[in-house]
Amino acid sequence: MKLYDLVLSGNCYKVRLFASFIDTPLTIVPVDFMNGEHKTEAILKLNPWGEIPILEDGSVILRDSQAILVYLANKYGGEAWWPSEAHLQADVMQWLSVASNEIQHGPNVARLIKKFGLESDWEQASERSHSILTLIDNHLGSHHWLAASRPTIADCAVYPYISTAHEGDIDIDSYRNIQVWMNRLQQLPNYISMPGN
Amino acid sequence: MKLYDLVLSGNCYKVRLFASFIDTPLTIVPVDFMNGEHKTEAILKLNPWGEIPILEDGSVILRDSQAILVYLANKYGGEAWWPSEAHLQADVMQWLSVASNEIQHGPNVARLIKKFGLESDWEQASERSHSILTLIDNHLGSHHWLAASRPTIADCAVYPYISTAHEGDIDIDSYRNIQVWMNRLQQLPNYISMPGN
Repeated sequence: MKLYDLVLSGNCYKVRLFASFIDTPLTIVPVDFMNGEHKTEAILKLNPWGEIPILEDGSVILRDSQAILVYLANKYGGEAWWPSEAHLQADVMQWLSVASNEIQHGPNVARLIKKFGLESDWEQASERSHSILTLIDNHLGSHHWLAASRPTIADCAVYPYISTAHEGDIDIDSYRNIQVWMNRLQQLPNYISMPGN
Repeated sequence: MKLYDLVLSGNCYKVRLFASFIDTPLTIVPVDFMNGEHKTEAILKLNPWGEIPILEDGSVILRDSQAILVYLANKYGGEAWWPSEAHLQADVMQWLSVASNEIQHGPNVARLIKKFGLESDWEQASERSHSILTLIDNHLGSHHWLAASRPTIADCAVYPYISTAHEGDIDIDSYRNIQVWMNRLQQLPNYISMPGN
């Protein structure tokens, strides 16, 4: 199973992290993002979005890190990480949307601006970051994990761009419950880090 | 089952639309969005995000329209709308992320600016809209539906803000495959419209 990957991408890292948690080996195919390899014909054929990560598992080809987490959980991770019961799965799903929406356009964009020179509105990204960080911190005041009573793919999806938020000049030191949750996640068996977290 | 609803919200409409497709009755609780009712204590207790839709089904309370679609499909809609097989479910999931990310920050934001006076960057929202509309139009050149060979919650999630994109001054007339797909969706049994589409 191949992962088209960039080591500095939080979206790629969330796939590597979850695959490690469930002890599923990935063949890493590095994509030279800085030189625009993700916009070449070979990659666009796999993913017309021109983005990574891309997962290739036999004839199955998937873009979007949240969809890849759902696939890996269904196929290799099992019920604990992606529950099948309706209200539990929807609870996890709420956080996959947070990863696609508020996290993507908050701490991820702030980091792209400060670390990779993206031309965009840092003030807006910062405001969005603190808005979602406040909601998450409040939630974690009464929950050990984002969804359910155990780690799920919700935690894997949300963690990467929070744990690297400081690279976008988003200070998360004051979010005490988030600090405790990050530490809890880092203690899970098979946890792996990425540069910056 | 209660839906806290705003008739002009595409995110609320996607829930009403899917519930209609699967013939599941909803008790509509109108929320006075224009006067800020979604930021009152009663609503914040149900959804700390201060957003609608919110679904209340007995003791289950859910925010986020994509999570609500997943819940309704699992509980009332069945396999056809939200397949359980790993790669098929991940295929649908890719489009739920598109709804949370590119559609939310593209045609939805453009409409919020033009129709509701949101202060934000219309040029950026327009660029994002045409970027995702081009990808969707290309995809629909060789697919009848966004995922699988039949309508799924992917179509329900992506359709609302495309069918009302013109209200954000996003012209979709030139996207021929999208036009055909919208028409196809509108012909499904129990289709309902919203103001503007």
